[in-house]
This record gives sequence, structure tokens and C-alpha cells, in this order.
Amino acid sequence: MMAHFNPVTPELVADLKRVLSDKQVKTDEEYLTAYQTDEEGNSYYFHKPEVVVFPETTEQVADVVKLANQYLVPLTPRAAGSGVACGAIPVYHGIVVELERMNKVLTFDADNMYAVCQTGVRTSDLQEMARQHHLLYAGDPSSAESCQIGGNVANNAGGNKAVKYGTTRNQLYSLKVVTPTGEIVTAGARLQKSSTGLCLEQLFAGSEGTLGIITEVTVKLRPLPPYRFNVVCVFKSDEEAFALPNKILKAGIDPTSIEFMDNEALVMTTKFLSMPMPHVDEGADYVIVTVETFSQDDADRKMEQLCDLAEANGAVDVLDADERIWKLRKQFAEAARDVDKMFQTEDFVVPLDQIAAMTAQIPELREKYDLYCVTVAHIGDGNIHVLPLNAKGLSPEAWFEKIKAFHADLFPRVYALGGKMSGEHGIGYKKLEEFAKCTPAAELHVIKAIKKALDPNNIMNPGKLVDMTGDFVAD
Amino acid sequence: MMAHFNPVTPELVADLKRVLSDKQVKTDEEYLTAYQTDEEGNSYYFHKPEVVVFPETTEQVADVVKLANQYLVPLTPRAAGSGVACGAIPVYHGIVVELERMNKVLTFDADNMYAVCQTGVRTSDLQEMARQHHLLYAGDPSSAESCQIGGNVANNAGGNKAVKYGTTRNQLYSLKVVTPTGEIVTAGARLQKSSTGLCLEQLFAGSEGTLGIITEVTVKLRPLPPYRFNVVCVFKSDEEAFALPNKILKAGIDPTSIEFMDNEALVMTTKFLSMPMPHVDEGADYVIVTVETFSQDDADRKMEQLCDLAEANGAVDVLDADERIWKLRKQFAEAARDVDKMFQTEDFVVPLDQIAAMTAQIPELREKYDLYCVTVAHIGDGNIHVLPLNAKGLSPEAWFEKIKAFHADLFPRVYALGGKMSGEHGIGYKKLEEFAKCTPAAELHVIKAIKKALDPNNIMNPGKLVDMTGDFVAD
Repeated sequence: MMAHFNPVTPELVADLKRVLSDKQVKTDEEYLTAYQTDEEGNSYYFHKPEVVVFPETTEQVADVVKLANQYLVPLTPRAAGSGVACGAIPVYHGIVVELERMNKVLTFDADNMYAVCQTGVRTSDLQEMARQHHLLYAGDPSSAESCQIGGNVANNAGGNKAVKYGTTRNQLYSLKVVTPTGEIVTAGARLQKSSTGLCLEQLFAGSEGTLGIITEVTVKLRPLPPYRFNVVCVFKSDEEAFALPNKILKAGIDPTSIEFMDNEALVMTTKFLSMPMPHVDEGADYVIVTVETFSQDDADRKMEQLCDLAEANGAVDVLDADERIWKLRKQFAEAARDVDKMFQTEDFVVPLDQIAAMTAQIPELREKYDLYCVTVAHIGDGNIHVLPLNAKGLSPEAWFEKIKAFHADLFPRVYALGGKMSGEHGIGYKKLEEFAKCTPAAELHVIKAIKKALDPNNIMNPGKLVDMTGDFVAD
Repeated sequence: MMAHFNPVTPELVADLKRVLSDKQVKTDEEYLTAYQTDEEGNSYYFHKPEVVVFPETTEQVADVVKLANQYLVPLTPRAAGSGVACGAIPVYHGIVVELERMNKVLTFDADNMYAVCQTGVRTSDLQEMARQHHLLYAGDPSSAESCQIGGNVANNAGGNKAVKYGTTRNQLYSLKVVTPTGEIVTAGARLQKSSTGLCLEQLFAGSEGTLGIITEVTVKLRPLPPYRFNVVCVFKSDEEAFALPNKILKAGIDPTSIEFMDNEALVMTTKFLSMPMPHVDEGADYVIVTVETFSQDDADRKMEQLCDLAEANGAVDVLDADERIWKLRKQFAEAARDVDKMFQTEDFVVPLDQIAAMTAQIPELREKYDLYCVTVAHIGDGNIHVLPLNAKGLSPEAWFEKIKAFHADLFPRVYALGGKMSGEHGIGYKKLEEFAKCTPAAELHVIKAIKKALDPNNIMNPGKLVDMTGDFVAD
């Protein structure tokens, strides 16, 4: 299966040191061990690279990619390594290309509302820089404090503001990309619209490093709405909670966020944070809504409208909340990790009108696979995070097998409702097999044809998103 | 150059009639003549097809595509034929695939705010259907009364609401596409977000029929803002007019449209419509701003803010306008056609902060190439329509040569300012050569690699967007 890749040789390491520098090329065991995983906690997935390189310019990245082609050695691009689909794990070993040193904001133009960032810029740093100029960078993954902008683009990260502003792909003007053959391409431009050639920037965005290495990202900034409020709608019935987002959207309230936490998620997280919250001990779910506006009047009007809608739709209480509610929401993953580091984050997405039909099947699946799950959801965009927790401390392999069986049952149900298996985390290595099974053959054929056309040696993040081994038989 | 294509034979026609029906396959001269052009008025570009087919289902389209591959005959997909880049002209003859009979709205779900349309649904019909349900279909090309939804997607049509809602690609959930090898692919899904596989829907959108034939489009509908106003900001200085959009956007006014008409465009169009307008005889330009809101208060606040901004930025008058202002704006192309049917619509797009630098070069170009031009612009998104009019009645070939020389001078100036040659009309056949010249080699290589991977016989709208003849040498 791996036959066509070569091992990293001393000659390649010497060539890497030539195009980079000694201190940018690491073969020490401590590095190889550190880079055997990303955010993944299950050692069953771990794979060590043979060398880790730290390029500092786009040209250096291109040089590395050319060497990888010349030596037929696989490359795994990596930004913060905060992904949860094993996308930055070097499953065929070879070279990890760590882009964290490319961490500069090259241009920040507040007047014209855009920024040019290198891949390794931390998302929260960009957010903060924008805020200081009364602007908004609207990409907002829950991991913003650790993730990096290039990784956000590669995975099309979603997060908490996608209802209003879309996902990372909707924040982009253009990308600088090193293609799998080592060419430097600028995809897109700082334009509000374009019908000039193919839409390559959206093809590269979300391609999980399989079509190239993103080295620079030109992002849109937006005027920051100065008024903002959070409301927590408390429900005793899941179904009533799930019906609310569509009503909010149709009313033209244009919320920034609509989030859901089920009672088990609330119990777990409030306990973890020692932060008691109303109605949690009564078995309630929360729908958290954030609205941002440009006038106080508009905020007041929307708040009233929202409270009326929530009550008319069965909310047992509506709470005016401050920013601590977002701490609760965002610390949820840490609370899950506290149970066991091998928690699994499902990330499926369904049409809004199918959320209830989908989540109604979870209890059956929990029982069938003997799983303890908690659920949070970006409910305003149909993206549901069901988190099976390894509460019983299974071994890595046993946990892997359990999740595999669960996935094989779960994903066909998601697709039957018009959904897909990932709303924002990507396929990576983790869902490779299930993606191939759930994707129609004609679509898979198009994906593979594009992959093969752009990456003739299959060296760019192989073993992620699509398995090309059958298409690249060793000579 | 065309060596590898075969002529349409009686055998192929018989096979086409077999997979379709007699009345869906036309070889009569009147059809071939009717389909030798689209919206293009210059006969220099005209090319006749050898056969025109009228499929009624996606499966029929797939059958036609399979036959085209089998016989190695080129295909030219066509919806309304309202494009202005010669995109639906069968430059290598062969088969025109006319999709106008696929004109049904298959699903209209007001509750869940989406519609599934066949390619041939007229854009204004979809807009009207949405309006009746208090919803908005936000795609709004000026040709909405004649163009069709599949053509809008293929060209990523822009229009008058792109400032707020984006272009056609931003209205899409998913596409049903017949690939160049005759496979049926559903790209995308009715989901608010997805990180599942490659973003094929955005690759197909705007690919101008070169990567497949779009047969169905699932579009987003939005809540229709019930309040709306139009303001005309009258300027005596272009530069002051061009500085206004960025200020409006930064203020969070979130306008639906910001349009520009220069004085010559106003003179021409008001005369054509016999509709005198204030300040036009004083040499004024107009910036037309439309704002839509969900409350009267919000509309009032934004109106006031807008008037203040316009006056502070040098507007000599600000007029509260009714919907007739949009008649003026939209009838502009008809007024140009009235001068001579061989008018040329430039469609370049630049960053907002470069509009003034770009348009400042037009007078020099007009003089150099002895052109009479008028200008309208989707100024809120940097998309400028300079229209050279064939006021002197040159011959088709002489007009073609003049425009060719003008383009060779114009486009490098656009690109030097970070712009691109088409904001919403596409490359088609008309700008093929200039696109190849202005596009960096690495980007062109990626585009060609994708084209070749998906269309190995180069039968899908060949001679549009990229010239693949060098890449397909006849056996």
C-alpha cells in the first residue's frame, strides 16, 4: 500500500537543510514523537514523521515540496495541529511541514477592511487585532485561542459565528498556495466578486492540505457591530428547542450565533467550571442566541422579538445572559477531555428541518453501542457535535473499534436525511473509510480526478480525505 | 487546431434521436442559424452548430454527453443565451445543448427557505415566486427578465444585489451536474455548512460550462426585508463618487446595492427612456444606493446616516428615489443597444480603493482607441462596466479589431491594480486570449489540469475560458 513512497534518506535531510537551514530541519526523536499526533488523543492513530521542517517563507515551502516530489516522500502540512480528524498526522510518515513560524500579519488595512496573514497567525490574534480597529474577523472556531488561520482555511473551520457570517471559506479573498508540484499559485483576489477563471480559492479551502499548502491568506474584515446581546432560551423538550432556529432566521433577526447544549453537556460543563446555571438541575436544554447590531434600537427590537418567539415556541424561561455564557459553551471540549482524553467529537451536519429527526436517533445508538454521549450543536447551521466519551476507560484499540462500529451505523442515517459527516472538522484520516463509503461514486471520481491531476505523485497529505493508493500503483 | 473533433454524422443524429426523441433534435437551417450566437451582436464571432438538442431530463443530458464522447463531437451548453462573453456560441460547431425545456421549479419550500430549480427556470420567475412567499431570491442580474438560473450559475452572474448578498455562487446550496464524461454528480447539499470533501459546487459554479452541464440548482431563499428605500447621491466629481461606497460599507449600513452611472450613461439612458432626471444636464454622476431593512426605524436611521455621509463626501444633492431609478439603471444596456447592436460591455473588477485609479485611465484609452464609451458600475463591489459603443458604425471585423487592441491595453492596467477582467460576465470565447495572457502560468496550469482531468476528450464547451487545443493533440 505504501510501496510507492520512499523513506527519508540522509541525502534528503541534507537537501532539506540546504534549501532551509540546519535549525529548520529536525530529526531528533523528541520532535518525531511530538509530531506523531495533532489534537487526537487516541494513540491508535499516532504515526511518527521521519523529519519535521519549519519553513519561514512561501519559497521555502515550495522548495520542500519540490524535494518531496524528487525523492517521492510524503508531506503532511500542519499549522497549530488543533484539528480533530487526524488531518495533521503523518500517516505515511515522511515530512511534516510545520508552518507555525510563518506567523506574521503581513498587511492589516483597516481602511479597506482586509488583512494578509501568513498561515501560522493565531486566529484569536487576528480577531483581537481587528477588534482594536472596530472591525470584525468573523471566523470564530471554538479553538480560536490555539488554532491558526491556515489550518482554519484548510479545514474550512466553522465555529460560533457561522449563522450570520458563514464559515472560514466565507471570510476569504485569496490564498497563496504551494501546489503539490511546488508551484506558487495565488487563488482568488481582493475583489468583491469575480467571474474570471475557476474558483480555485474555494477548491483549495477545505481541501485539508491534500491539494497544496496554504502559506498566505487574505481575509475580509467587516465593520464590528457595536451592540450585542446574548439570550439563553431554556427548553424542557429537545424538539421545541430544535424548532426555534428556523423561526429566528425567518423573522429576519439575523443572529450571529444560535447554539445548543443538551442537559448532559450542561451538567458536565457547569460541574467542570464550578459554574452553576439556572434550570440545569431540572433537566433543561439551552439554546443560546447572540445578536449583534449597529444601533441600540435595533438590539432592543430584536431582543423583544426573540423573547416572544422563544416563549411562543415552548421555552420555559428566557434569560438575558452576559459573556460568561460563551465561556460555558467554549469550555465544553475541555470538560469532555477531563472525562477522558480519548473523547470523540462527531461533527455531522443536517438540514435545519432534520435536526430533530437526526438527534431522535441518538438514544438508540447510545444504547446499541453502550456509549455515554453529550451533545452540543451549532444549531443555527445544523451542525451537531455528539461527543461519545470514553467514560469506562477502554483501551485505545477497543475505543477505536467501538467508534468505528458506531460510525458505520451513524453516518448512513445522517446521509439519509440529506446530511454530511462533517460540518467543520473535515474528513482527515479519521473518517477516510466512511467518507468513501457514504460518497456517491461519481462524486468520489471527480474528487480523485482532481487530486490526481494536481498531485500526480500523491505526496501531498496522502491518506487524508480520499485514499488514492489504488490510483497510484507502485512501478 | 480542431483536428481532433469529428463532424456530426447522420449516425450521431440518429443516436441523438434515439436517446431523446425526433422533436428534441434539430438540424434545420433555421435552428442552426438561430443558435450561431447568444447575446453577442457582432457577426464576427458567430459559429453555427451542426445540431441543436433540447433535453428534458438530467438523464437525457447525460445520454447526449456520452454520445458526444463516443463520437468525439464538441458540446455547447446553453440556457437563455443571454450571456455577453460568447459563452454559448458553438465555436467548434458540433452540438448545442439547449436546456430551456428544463424549466420547472421542482421544489419550492417556503418554510425551509429553499427551492430546487431546473436549469431553464427564468431568474425573474424565481424572484417573483419567492416574493409571493415574502422571501427573497437574492441573485439579481440586470437581465433577470430573460436569463435562466443555470446560466446564472455557470457564469456566476452578479447583478444589483451583490453588495449585500454576494453573486450567484453565494445563493447556492447544491448543483446537479452532468460531468464531461456523462456522469451525474450532486455537488454540495442543502446544508448551512460542510467540511466534507472538496467544494465541488463552487468549482462548477462559474466554470462557464467547461466542467459540466448544470441541470438542477438548489438555491437559498432569504427572508424578504419589508422596508426599502433608494437614494440617489448626485456628484459633480467622479473621485468623490467613488470614495462613497467604502464609507457606506464601513458604517455598517449594509446596503443591498450601490450603483454608479456616469453622466454620459445618464444622458444616453434618460434620452432613450424619455425620462428626464435632475442634475443630468449639469454633467452630474449618480450613485444609487438601495437599503432594505426589517423595521421602519432601522430604515429611517440608515437613510439619515446615508444622507449625512453623502453630503460630507461632496454630494451636491441627495434625492429620495422610487423604483423608477432602477428602471433607469436596468434599461441602460437597451439604450446602448439602440446606438448599435455591436456595443461591447467591459466588465472588469478592481478593489474598491482602486476604482478611482482605474477609471481615471479611461479617458486616455478612449482617446487612444477613438472610442465613445459610457460607464455604469456596480460600484459597491468594484465591478465596472465601461461600454464602448460602435457609434461610428464600423464593420464587424473592424470593430472586433478595435476592441481587441483596446483589451490588450486595458486588461494589464486592471491587473496591475489587483483587478481581474470579469466581475460577472465570464471569459467565454471573447476574452479567451486575454485571459491566457493575464493569468499567471501556475494558475493557468492548475485550471488546465482540472479541465483535462474532468474532460479528457475536451468536448465540454471547448474554446471557452481556456484554450486546451495544445493539450489535446489529435492521435
